Amino acid sequence: MGSINSINIGVIGYGYWGPNLVRNFSELSGVNVRTVSDFSPDLLAKAKARYPAIQITTDCSDIFNDPEIDAVAIATPVSTHFKLALAALQSGKHVMVEKPMTMTSEQSIELLAEAKRQNRILMVDHTFVYTGAVRKMAELVSSKELGDIYYYDSVRVNLGLFQHDVNVLWDLAVHDLSIMDYVLPAKPYAVSATGISHVPNGTENIAYLTLFFENNLIAHLHVNWLAPVKVRRTLIGGSQKMIVFDDLDPSEKIKVYDKGITLNNNDSESVYQKMIGYRTGDMWSPKLDITEALRTEGLHFLHCIQTGERPISDGEAGLRVVKILEAANQSMKEQGKLVKLNLAEVSS
Amino acid sequence: MGSINSINIGVIGYGYWGPNLVRNFSELSGVNVRTVSDFSPDLLAKAKARYPAIQITTDCSDIFNDPEIDAVAIATPVSTHFKLALAALQSGKHVMVEKPMTMTSEQSIELLAEAKRQNRILMVDHTFVYTGAVRKMAELVSSKELGDIYYYDSVRVNLGLFQHDVNVLWDLAVHDLSIMDYVLPAKPYAVSATGISHVPNGTENIAYLTLFFENNLIAHLHVNWLAPVKVRRTLIGGSQKMIVFDDLDPSEKIKVYDKGITLNNNDSESVYQKMIGYRTGDMWSPKLDITEALRTEGLHFLHCIQTGERPISDGEAGLRVVKILEAANQSMKEQGKLVKLNLAEVSS
Amino acid sequence: MGSINSINIGVIGYGYWGPNLVRNFSELSGVNVRTVSDFSPDLLAKAKARYPAIQITTDCSDIFNDPEIDAVAIATPVSTHFKLALAALQSGKHVMVEKPMTMTSEQSIELLAEAKRQNRILMVDHTFVYTGAVRKMAELVSSKELGDIYYYDSVRVNLGLFQHDVNVLWDLAVHDLSIMDYVLPAKPYAVSATGISHVPNGTENIAYLTLFFENNLIAHLHVNWLAPVKVRRTLIGGSQKMIVFDDLDPSEKIKVYDKGITLNNNDSESVYQKMIGYRTGDMWSPKLDITEALRTEGLHFLHCIQTGERPISDGEAGLRVVKILEAANQSMKEQGKLVKLNLAEVSS
Amino acid sequence: MGSINSINIGVIGYGYWGPNLVRNFSELSGVNVRTVSDFSPDLLAKAKARYPAIQITTDCSDIFNDPEIDAVAIATPVSTHFKLALAALQSGKHVMVEKPMTMTSEQSIELLAEAKRQNRILMVDHTFVYTGAVRKMAELVSSKELGDIYYYDSVRVNLGLFQHDVNVLWDLAVHDLSIMDYVLPAKPYAVSATGISHVPNGTENIAYLTLFFENNLIAHLHVNWLAPVKVRRTLIGGSQKMIVFDDLDPSEKIKVYDKGITLNNNDSESVYQKMIGYRTGDMWSPKLDITEALRTEGLHFLHCIQTGERPISDGEAGLRVVKILEAANQSMKEQGKLVKLNLAEVSS
Repeated sequence: MGSINSINIGVIGYGYWGPNLVRNFSELSGVNVRTVSDFSPDLLAKAKARYPAIQITTDCSDIFNDPEIDAVAIATPVSTHFKLALAALQSGKHVMVEKPMTMTSEQSIELLAEAKRQNRILMVDHTFVYTGAVRKMAELVSSKELGDIYYYDSVRVNLGLFQHDVNVLWDLAVHDLSIMDYVLPAKPYAVSATGISHVPNGTENIAYLTLFFENNLIAHLHVNWLAPVKVRRTLIGGSQKMIVFDDLDPSEKIKVYDKGITLNNNDSESVYQKMIGYRTGDMWSPKLDITEALRTEGLHFLHCIQTGERPISDGEAGLRVVKILEAANQSMKEQGKLVKLNLAEVSS
Repeated sequence: MGSINSINIGVIGYGYWGPNLVRNFSELSGVNVRTVSDFSPDLLAKAKARYPAIQITTDCSDIFNDPEIDAVAIATPVSTHFKLALAALQSGKHVMVEKPMTMTSEQSIELLAEAKRQNRILMVDHTFVYTGAVRKMAELVSSKELGDIYYYDSVRVNLGLFQHDVNVLWDLAVHDLSIMDYVLPAKPYAVSATGISHVPNGTENIAYLTLFFENNLIAHLHVNWLAPVKVRRTLIGGSQKMIVFDDLDPSEKIKVYDKGITLNNNDSESVYQKMIGYRTGDMWSPKLDITEALRTEGLHFLHCIQTGERPISDGEAGLRVVKILEAANQSMKEQGKLVKLNLAEVSS
Repeated sequence: MGSINSINIGVIGYGYWGPNLVRNFSELSGVNVRTVSDFSPDLLAKAKARYPAIQITTDCSDIFNDPEIDAVAIATPVSTHFKLALAALQSGKHVMVEKPMTMTSEQSIELLAEAKRQNRILMVDHTFVYTGAVRKMAELVSSKELGDIYYYDSVRVNLGLFQHDVNVLWDLAVHDLSIMDYVLPAKPYAVSATGISHVPNGTENIAYLTLFFENNLIAHLHVNWLAPVKVRRTLIGGSQKMIVFDDLDPSEKIKVYDKGITLNNNDSESVYQKMIGYRTGDMWSPKLDITEALRTEGLHFLHCIQTGERPISDGEAGLRVVKILEAANQSMKEQGKLVKLNLAEVSS
Repeated sequence: MGSINSINIGVIGYGYWGPNLVRNFSELSGVNVRTVSDFSPDLLAKAKARYPAIQITTDCSDIFNDPEIDAVAIATPVSTHFKLALAALQSGKHVMVEKPMTMTSEQSIELLAEAKRQNRILMVDHTFVYTGAVRKMAELVSSKELGDIYYYDSVRVNLGLFQHDVNVLWDLAVHDLSIMDYVLPAKPYAVSATGISHVPNGTENIAYLTLFFENNLIAHLHVNWLAPVKVRRTLIGGSQKMIVFDDLDPSEKIKVYDKGITLNNNDSESVYQKMIGYRTGDMWSPKLDITEALRTEGLHFLHCIQTGERPISDGEAGLRVVKILEAANQSMKEQGKLVKLNLAEVSS
């Protein structure tokens, strides 16, 4: 299937994100965007005008049925991910699907199984994982430069865009969950979430999410579609150093603080205050790789297709994020009730 | 008791906060700081050096027993508030006590009862309530300039100072709870809290707190003693306008954004996206009264003593805050379990 | 010439800025980009791929000689502006030329004369003048809301891009001079400039420029290609209010401060300090028109062509800016020596 | 003179700065503040209340005539510095005098001569030189970590306080000149300054100052009493690294950027653009000594008195700063005219 020298890709969905996929895949050597599919003839016309050599179709089965196509990238509404990804896998294509991977964890599990059966790559487009900033954070965490990780705290708020088919957790928190899944050394065992809706259909536009981990680690996410200012800030606290990741800072997105507390092994007679010391040192902002994340991700997808390697953001990462979103939704409906997670079994 | 023209005040505790109380009361006309009490002779010597006319004592009953003293200000560790405030009320003094008012709501209720019996003012030192910034927010909320209030979100994080007798909720969230109690038009009916401790004695140094209100209002607090950066930021979202209160901004602490969403009364046929419009207008940062909060508060205490008026931060406000802290503690121990509040009965 | 319903435009230069011109003109109704010219076949191929209906040529005289073309936009290196604009005018085209308009004021004067002779529009692309932020500043100044204007101070610094044919004044200060020319109510009578070069060919990469006006007004520009941080900030001080224009602020570019001093008409016996009072009030950040400046400018060019109106950024504005740049260059060579300007005669 | 173990100090002037001097000297071991002098009995009463053991006098000759006093600190208006410092030196006291050291360079030269005759320490209170931030900058410059120094650019603007006896150069630029004198490896040979006054007495409240150095180094200062925002920012550009010093940043005042340009030794055939490369690396914010500058300075003064060492901010530093201020004033009166400096001869 496909030519010897080049991977042929079909892209389904040419709305908000699809054009970015097409542009990035087009710029990679060894990749050819062969077909773009969308319900909208207008959007297809735009694609054709920009990339005259691309085939366009309103029927995505043209992609599934094309034996020249090796891989499919899916950038459609969440509710359609499962059906399209399943069809693509069943027709023997490698798949890269937008996040969140599916609407339910059952669907994700089915996709994982199908990918295994077909021996095809299933990758979820956790784009942030491929940014220079997030990769630097992962590197700092895994190198133990931060020491033990104490907490992960993220704020992602702004005004709009209210989605109609998913709530703010599925729209915004999914970014943070995918980052956490990549950066943190452990998986959470339970979640407590709260939230509120200010629109008639009851879709939550503000949500708060606490994730519980073993070993004294906690994570918290704050997402909001109705904030007067835009904030994209993550704190990672470690026993040795702490990170501030401000994605809106044009030049210094990652700052590493040599700060923390020291716990003195005083004998029990000593007063409490002497047990805790405060330590402050230099701050350091590393230079980051500024390659566009989708380019790095596209190259990685290509590499996995060619080598059979498991993607960094593989189907299991996609499943873990969906499981957390499901549990968070349930907890939010019950005003913070603890909901247990079972992520360990994901990694088979 | 006391002179005709001047209120005599005794101050108990001359550690961190007491000197501020003494300095501010000393600068008010119509007030005389007569006695300062503390366990530490060194601290008392400092007080005497700075205010040679003040009497000093290591025995606070000297204050309770002095018939010339009209009012007592208590700035001691939380665990001693109840005993000292009760003794002061029982000896017929007006009382201003640090926040949180007591360690338990039962204690607060007893203080309220005693103040009523003695017909004395019981005021809790919710200092923030007397700042220009918080008073401006209250004014904007009560004037309906923001429209209906949708949410209150506050972040209060920095490195240190770890307390040994109370957790981060009782140390930091108490500020936000006192501000909310003053600014918001409603009282919460339940709380869900999560948190974690990174020190051996198990005192939580990070906490997240969601407060549930009727009428589509939610509040959330984030407090942290172990953050690499200092943040003091509150968002208040309304149906018409939204506020950002950044207490670290030296010149523009309050910003009012003419931003929000508009809900269109479309017929059911219309697509969802057309139901929500986004509105952005000017931003405005009002000039604030920069009088030191403790001065404003001292004048208010004096005014209430002289007129019998109920203080803005009266004992019932103190009780409400303690009730929320108690419930939050309980919820935090049970990882976010919803705990109902019963604040309505406070206002008798 | 041209069709009845539509203006035909030729664009010369498809390097950095040309594609923006083509894109914006293409999106306007009533305008047709007919031909693009550039020396580089590669760049022309890009233009053709994006806009298949456009004619391309490496010979710009094809544009001058095309009777269907009504107007020419010139986005080439500064040294070529004069020759190209002159040829365009001589062939009866309306002209919009990049800033700075020409290399010398003599050239600008010739262009002005030719435009007059041909009765054609000569407009210089002072893009900033068409931004919402600059138009708001001009509105605030002309409405006298700021009172008398006391000073204009601008900083425009960052790392790169070192130009080889012009120094930092001609590359960066030209923006500020065009803004000032539009916003300020008066024209400067003299200039003092200093600067330095850190590259072998002696092209200045840092420059400071003071402009002297009558009536107690002063302006100062700081431009630098070798700064570690990017700054785009302008202060305008008035007797009543003051503006901060921070072009890097994504949401609040213009802030209006109700601040200033008050000069008391004290009798001569009073001490000096009592003569000056400080006044601080609210800050206000107006909502700005966020239409892309080039779109607004394109519409304005079109309007001027159709009505014969004089453009806001007409050839005389272009000439004034070139005169100041020339004088500044001369002053800089003589280390700050005052050089007189003769801008009044420009407006004929 | 004086006791064997302790240095006795007299402080003249207890207005704005004097209390800081008294407080810091009082906290040093080995120093005794013996006498405070001021014209105002009210200010002296304040000093006495705070420091009961200190002698107070309205006649500063009581200080000069007291054989027990070893050193005098002078914190009075600039116009009185010369007379008081001269009298102090003539009576055999060591002297620390506020900046600027005197109103004229002639006066500074006389003080230097008298200090030499009397073999006494003459130190000028260039406070910034003793801050952790400025000492760190000096260390980075002298260690050659920045490479060759290309420029020094400083902005010091805010609203108020208009001085009546000196213009904004003598009030604000004096800080930057003292920092530059300490940090930069060379002394300027000429100055060009411009400025303006918006008050009736003609005292300049805005000024711009360019300093010319050999070896491709330039410095520029911008000072303004009439700005709507407060800015305290210095850039130091080097061939290897660049510094941003933001004195208003509460936690990261110094940032070191590994940024710059690289000049390639291309053969003459190569195109110009290839000659310049841009280099960006990590940013680093070193931990700073946060000791109060006046404490460090007081210890240094003490050390110089005891050892005879020349102070970092010695009389010659004071003279250099006064010489630059004089020249800048002259240049400003002539609208930027270059005025030569003769600082080399200062160091004898």
